[in-house]
Amino acid sequence: MPDEVLNDISHRRYNPLTGSWLLVSPHRTKRPWQGAQETPSKNTLPEYDPKCYLCPGNKRAQGDSNPHYKNTFAFVNDYSAVKEEQQDYHPETNKDDAASLLLQARPVTGRCYVLTFSAKHDTTLADMTAEEIVPVINTWTRIYASHLSPSHPLKDQAKQALESIPQNLDGEGEPPKHQLKNMQIFENKGAAMGCSNPHPHCQIWTTSTLPEEPGKELVNMGKYKADTGRHLLGDYVKLELEKKERVVWENDAFVIVCPWWAVWPFEVLILSKRHVRALVDLDDKERLQFAEAIQEVARRYDNLFETNFPYSSGIHQAPLDCTEEEAETSWFHMHFYPPLLRSATVKKFLVGYELMAEPQRDITPEQAAAKLRDCGGELYRKPLQ
Amino acid sequence: MPDEVLNDISHRRYNPLTGSWLLVSPHRTKRPWQGAQETPSKNTLPEYDPKCYLCPGNKRAQGDSNPHYKNTFAFVNDYSAVKEEQQDYHPETNKDDAASLLLQARPVTGRCYVLTFSAKHDTTLADMTAEEIVPVINTWTRIYASHLSPSHPLKDQAKQALESIPQNLDGEGEPPKHQLKNMQIFENKGAAMGCSNPHPHCQIWTTSTLPEEPGKELVNMGKYKADTGRHLLGDYVKLELEKKERVVWENDAFVIVCPWWAVWPFEVLILSKRHVRALVDLDDKERLQFAEAIQEVARRYDNLFETNFPYSSGIHQAPLDCTEEEAETSWFHMHFYPPLLRSATVKKFLVGYELMAEPQRDITPEQAAAKLRDCGGELYRKPLQ
Ligand SMILES: O=P(O)(O)O[C@H]1O[C@H](CO)[C@@H](O)[C@H](O)[C@H]1O
Ligand SMILES: O=P(O)(O)O[C@H]1O[C@H](CO)[C@@H](O)[C@H](O)[C@H]1O
Repeated sequence: MPDEVLNDISHRRYNPLTGSWLLVSPHRTKRPWQGAQETPSKNTLPEYDPKCYLCPGNKRAQGDSNPHYKNTFAFVNDYSAVKEEQQDYHPETNKDDAASLLLQARPVTGRCYVLTFSAKHDTTLADMTAEEIVPVINTWTRIYASHLSPSHPLKDQAKQALESIPQNLDGEGEPPKHQLKNMQIFENKGAAMGCSNPHPHCQIWTTSTLPEEPGKELVNMGKYKADTGRHLLGDYVKLELEKKERVVWENDAFVIVCPWWAVWPFEVLILSKRHVRALVDLDDKERLQFAEAIQEVARRYDNLFETNFPYSSGIHQAPLDCTEEEAETSWFHMHFYPPLLRSATVKKFLVGYELMAEPQRDITPEQAAAKLRDCGGELYRKPLQ
Repeated sequence: MPDEVLNDISHRRYNPLTGSWLLVSPHRTKRPWQGAQETPSKNTLPEYDPKCYLCPGNKRAQGDSNPHYKNTFAFVNDYSAVKEEQQDYHPETNKDDAASLLLQARPVTGRCYVLTFSAKHDTTLADMTAEEIVPVINTWTRIYASHLSPSHPLKDQAKQALESIPQNLDGEGEPPKHQLKNMQIFENKGAAMGCSNPHPHCQIWTTSTLPEEPGKELVNMGKYKADTGRHLLGDYVKLELEKKERVVWENDAFVIVCPWWAVWPFEVLILSKRHVRALVDLDDKERLQFAEAIQEVARRYDNLFETNFPYSSGIHQAPLDCTEEEAETSWFHMHFYPPLLRSATVKKFLVGYELMAEPQRDITPEQAAAKLRDCGGELYRKPLQ
């Protein structure tokens, strides 16, 4: 245990990646619950759903048809949050003009992809083997590589990835018309996390701007490096491997921890053990090891409350367009934010106090890690074939 | 319209209160929805529920009984997130010790209250009249006043409030044992916002630390004041009253706007028109005018989709313990964050991209304000008596 007293007292913990604090109330898990219960997700899906716009061969919203793809298939989202071409907009800010300071807007362009994980409508990452997850990571890597700026510090690694990882002929998008700044890969899993289609898939939003979260992380990792000469997440990995209190699982290349500063009850972080800057830094073996780590998280989550565990996950890595220094500062990692707290049906709501004041959690990350360590092994339900 | 082009192009807007950006995708409301639908809240509650721990006369979790109160009643939460007395903890940070930088924790003490809005189990702020809401604001004001530090710049206003607003003999808490730093008043309304009991109530969490959100707002308002010599929200109120595009409703003392930087689909902000630093600055008439504003928000929300509209709301004002400068920098306001997007059953999920990258919204704040302007008038359902 970190400092025994933290199991008992209310305290704030510091998130060095975002530079912000959260409130931890270890004694608060005993309160009664009369509120909303989530509907447990049922596994009653067909392997192929003729109405699903992600299943192989089906028609999508705007008329295009999906190929009869085998595992992954990437296409441009029919309802993208950002578009590649739009009218320009160049407002000016001026200290003496309050409107220019208080009503600020800037254009954002980009391209959004949807990427299926499998041809099967009724599977999930927890049902898939690490080997079956590798094509997903390969496609992520190829899409990242093909969107890197021509002068990017990782351009040689990108070139090599594009040469060595076989192209997915079923579709993996194509480089955008204009160079973009950032690529955010994320998955919303389960209806509780706003997923509008259960067919296993993630999204990839590329934008002309660096969004808030990866932006904050880069700044804070940069400061730590300037102050100490070391990598923030490098030091953190070392500490966690020494202390073991928050480690859920590890292989040679990756470690899964419930981070010290976790906000969501069973939040985890997959961290590369060596300094990996982006997907294109991973070799064949490491991509398989990363697939193993993702599989471990997904399976342990489902085992924890014996349910199809909802979460949002996302990868942070070097931006698509960045300086040598920014690439060096980046440390590859993947966040998982799951809402369930006490069972398949009771979730933690990040609401009033959390939105108005600061995030608050009940069980400690150390308690969460202990539970997740204990639910490895076979998937509680028969994996779908 | 602000700049016509912003109705069409994807753009980022800047939130000057928090110093962060969000992504706006005006064209994105057309996408199909196959995901979770909220269960519409039904008005089938009894006026008195013998099992509710907030109803007058009932027993609470830890054995105490509620008085037979008339309207509001405040008591210390039986499952407080922070406690007044706990073991101490004084870690040191040291640049050469990575653990002291990356595993930081600080103790937080405080006291959490629950405050009922009405004796009736089945009512809501939308069903109540402004006159019936005044006692809620009076109790907020008295609790705030009685928790102010003895040397607080608003101590005279607090004294006056405690003298002129009649004491609620049914219970309004009592000053904490140690001086605290901040008081966060907030309401979670509806099961969709994690509310575990439908009896109308809010919570008040007082803490020994200044939480993240009010802390960020103070810093940004302070910077604006230093740069321009004016109040950020003072300038903003003026701008909105001139432009009218985002104004939902106003009276002499308060204005309701969908802020330029709104994240939630129908997010609104109640702003005082004159420079009010905290609840104790409001006079009798202004407290009634504030009650009118709250009533307008609650009723319009319910009218919008003809449902018991869920939201989290919260008040930001001068901290309980602060300098003259911090009090002067504060500008009283109340946020409302409601999750519904398109109907009583379809909400906006702030998930994958929002959590991993940055908040994203579909309809513009100007469109939201127009809809909320149009649904004033009588409550769509017969208000409960
Ligand atoms: O205190 P309550 O109403 O039981 O709990 C609710 O509000 C709290 C403060 O926003 C949250 O931490 C909880 O997750 C939520 O369920
Ligand atoms: O794109 P989807 O899956 O339809 O939509 C989901 O993910 C998006 C990105 O996190 C969110 O903006 C939406 O609110 C959510 O419902």
